[in-house]
Amino acid sequence: MESSHRELKEQAWLANVEIPRRGLAIATFGNASAFDAAAGVMAIKPSGVPYPTLTAADMVVVDLAGTVVEGTLRPSSDARTHLVLYRSLPGLGGVAHTHSTYATAWAQAGRAIPILGTTHADHLAEDVPCTAVMSEAAASLDYETETGNQILEVFRTRNPLHVPMVLVAGHGPFTWGTSADQAVYHAQVLEQLAQMAFVTRSIHPGAPRLPEHLVRKHFERKHGPAASYGQRK
Amino acid sequence: MESSHRELKEQAWLANVEIPRRGLAIATFGNASAFDAAAGVMAIKPSGVPYPTLTAADMVVVDLAGTVVEGTLRPSSDARTHLVLYRSLPGLGGVAHTHSTYATAWAQAGRAIPILGTTHADHLAEDVPCTAVMSEAAASLDYETETGNQILEVFRTRNPLHVPMVLVAGHGPFTWGTSADQAVYHAQVLEQLAQMAFVTRSIHPGAPRLPEHLVRKHFERKHGPAASYGQRK
Amino acid sequence: MESSHRELKEQAWLANVEIPRRGLAIATFGNASAFDAAAGVMAIKPSGVPYPTLTAADMVVVDLAGTVVEGTLRPSSDARTHLVLYRSLPGLGGVAHTHSTYATAWAQAGRAIPILGTTHADHLAEDVPCTAVMSEAAASLDYETETGNQILEVFRTRNPLHVPMVLVAGHGPFTWGTSADQAVYHAQVLEQLAQMAFVTRSIHPGAPRLPEHLVRKHFERKHGPAASYGQRK
Amino acid sequence: MESSHRELKEQAWLANVEIPRRGLAIATFGNASAFDAAAGVMAIKPSGVPYPTLTAADMVVVDLAGTVVEGTLRPSSDARTHLVLYRSLPGLGGVAHTHSTYATAWAQAGRAIPILGTTHADHLAEDVPCTAVMSEAAASLDYETETGNQILEVFRTRNPLHVPMVLVAGHGPFTWGTSADQAVYHAQVLEQLAQMAFVTRSIHPGAPRLPEHLVRKHFERKHGPAASYGQRK
Repeated sequence: MESSHRELKEQAWLANVEIPRRGLAIATFGNASAFDAAAGVMAIKPSGVPYPTLTAADMVVVDLAGTVVEGTLRPSSDARTHLVLYRSLPGLGGVAHTHSTYATAWAQAGRAIPILGTTHADHLAEDVPCTAVMSEAAASLDYETETGNQILEVFRTRNPLHVPMVLVAGHGPFTWGTSADQAVYHAQVLEQLAQMAFVTRSIHPGAPRLPEHLVRKHFERKHGPAASYGQRK
Repeated sequence: MESSHRELKEQAWLANVEIPRRGLAIATFGNASAFDAAAGVMAIKPSGVPYPTLTAADMVVVDLAGTVVEGTLRPSSDARTHLVLYRSLPGLGGVAHTHSTYATAWAQAGRAIPILGTTHADHLAEDVPCTAVMSEAAASLDYETETGNQILEVFRTRNPLHVPMVLVAGHGPFTWGTSADQAVYHAQVLEQLAQMAFVTRSIHPGAPRLPEHLVRKHFERKHGPAASYGQRK
Repeated sequence: MESSHRELKEQAWLANVEIPRRGLAIATFGNASAFDAAAGVMAIKPSGVPYPTLTAADMVVVDLAGTVVEGTLRPSSDARTHLVLYRSLPGLGGVAHTHSTYATAWAQAGRAIPILGTTHADHLAEDVPCTAVMSEAAASLDYETETGNQILEVFRTRNPLHVPMVLVAGHGPFTWGTSADQAVYHAQVLEQLAQMAFVTRSIHPGAPRLPEHLVRKHFERKHGPAASYGQRK
Repeated sequence: MESSHRELKEQAWLANVEIPRRGLAIATFGNASAFDAAAGVMAIKPSGVPYPTLTAADMVVVDLAGTVVEGTLRPSSDARTHLVLYRSLPGLGGVAHTHSTYATAWAQAGRAIPILGTTHADHLAEDVPCTAVMSEAAASLDYETETGNQILEVFRTRNPLHVPMVLVAGHGPFTWGTSADQAVYHAQVLEQLAQMAFVTRSIHPGAPRLPEHLVRKHFERKHGPAASYGQRK
């Protein structure tokens, strides 16, 4: 059968295979999706399928209401969390969820990752935020949708394209970007930031945050109107 | 000579070669076995043979009384521990024993691995238990059988298929499942949980256990009667 | 078009591709340059180009005043920091900048790496120095040039060929040598020293510096007039 | 030219190339030698040659007095340390010296590695000993010979074949065995023990030594007259 979403599925698949390749998850852990805002659909990894056997054709296409519109496999059990993000955070073209070791450890500690250096400031200008632990009341509702709602709570006061990552307390990281590829890139960056912050605070428990003037400098070098990083487009 | 247990030996061999491939042991450390409950025999790695030279034909087939029924090599020195588990814990199709770094460190610390997040709760709904240190009296009996008995002590009050892993204090992890392949998968998951718990408690020594309502939610998502994870069979 | 700096660009490119190969940076992080003192130009990595797609022809040739003299891509955003070093520190043939995990963690902690053993003393005879955090006043000037100036401050009283590495506080390491290849070698050595020092101080927070008589012994074995290491030239 | 020590050089070379392959050293760090007790010569790595370019023909053959009897390259700067061990510790067929991360960190901490579990007890029945820091007086003599003498001090009261490894304080590990291959195997085991002990004591600073009855049990399983590990010879 001819797919109406061949490219979207290809993008989602490429992003998913990068998750284990970059050491961000073992076995079937983690998932990535690609979003087509015009069509109002995302392509996402099927549930519980190991990465080495995954093909682009296996990707499941789901509309914003959660209905499967293409694909014979069940979507990832985290699909409804992805959908909450696409419905409410404007500009997202991809979402990734991993169980990478150090980012998950910070999430398990229930702690935001402090902004301690320029590697961090090159990507976001504040601590990597951490959600509250989900209450028993919320967990008794639709769990995956509520996970998304916990994240939205954090982004009431933040621009998701300026802070493209979050820790879900007791669970692990979700990251995103303008594409599925960028979402996985942010998952890799987050894991690096999480490990560096762990080592920094082990060396010096009182290591201070990067001063605000350096945070701004680095973030604007990459993201401001006067950005000087990368090649001119 | 024609083998009566060709498939069982193949399963045991495949599981054993995954141990070093997944970074769970160096040199000749560790071993996995596959159990055929109907025939009452297990196939296990021979003792002291390095993984790269191992073949399926090298696997040693041993009956539940410990008698070698097929194979020219000596079985793993831990064979009698595997046999105790197959004799007493119903439903096991495979057992794995590794010396993976972080799981062994928790075993050496004599501490259960606390359930700190959903990666853990996806696989078991409680701390990874740790046996008592073996007494001098027990160690003077058949040591490998007594190691199995230390494990059984822990499973008097636990369902081994719900808690498919244990730490033997001062020694290292044993894991199992309905197949040898699943036993090694659980060894890999355990190593991941052990590393995450180490980092979490280094970041925040007082990091609390995952609340019970989230433990249940995740465990039942994968294992309960209303499991929503993976593909429908 | 024929290049006037073919060899220099080749050296710079070879050094850059070693950065991810030796695990010193992910994605586009980090950069290395090669300097031709006679011609007064350096070849450096272009900004924001991922390592796997990099070619020798992509290297950008820049003169000591910062003018691009060859190449169609923008030079690394850190180019002006490299230029400060080539202008002021005599004898440098290459500079490398990475975001390697452990060296960056010490930089984020704002701490010099103590000289705790002979691996360290084989390469430099004192702690790896760490700059001050850049003031708001300095950061409001040309940021990359000021980063270089922060480093020069440290080398007022040090021989840069005897101490071929520095941590920029809150940022990460810069290393150098008589060639681009040696600069990357020093980046790799620094990462090893940084990890060993982290583990040493975790095991024993009061671990003392290597006594001065052993520091001298090892440094002179490799670098003194009576050096006994390596092959006679 | 025909070599009189072709096999010995081959053994030394094979052991040396395993050092970086097993992640025990970067660049030119570390060295291994093979000893022919009957001929009274050892073959050892030349000084400062990177592992990837090393060939068996590069190995340098040195007699017990330290005279090069075959080879055109300079022997490793640690050669005289190896010779002290071959001259004074009976039964050695190979020696390895690495700068592996965790073993070196314990050496830099100046601490013996405590025997915390059976992985350790399978290989030696006590803590991995650590020498004293070399005095200024000793360091002013022949440094490499004195390093060997520091090690001998530790083995006045120990059987080197029962304790095939030592930490030189502020420096790093030396290991040995009945062959060069076994020496490198012990270097790899030591690195594993060092990492496990670091993690164990990080999890639980008061983690106790393995009780003596379990130490004996494991050591004798592999090494005693009633050894049950491995294949019968």
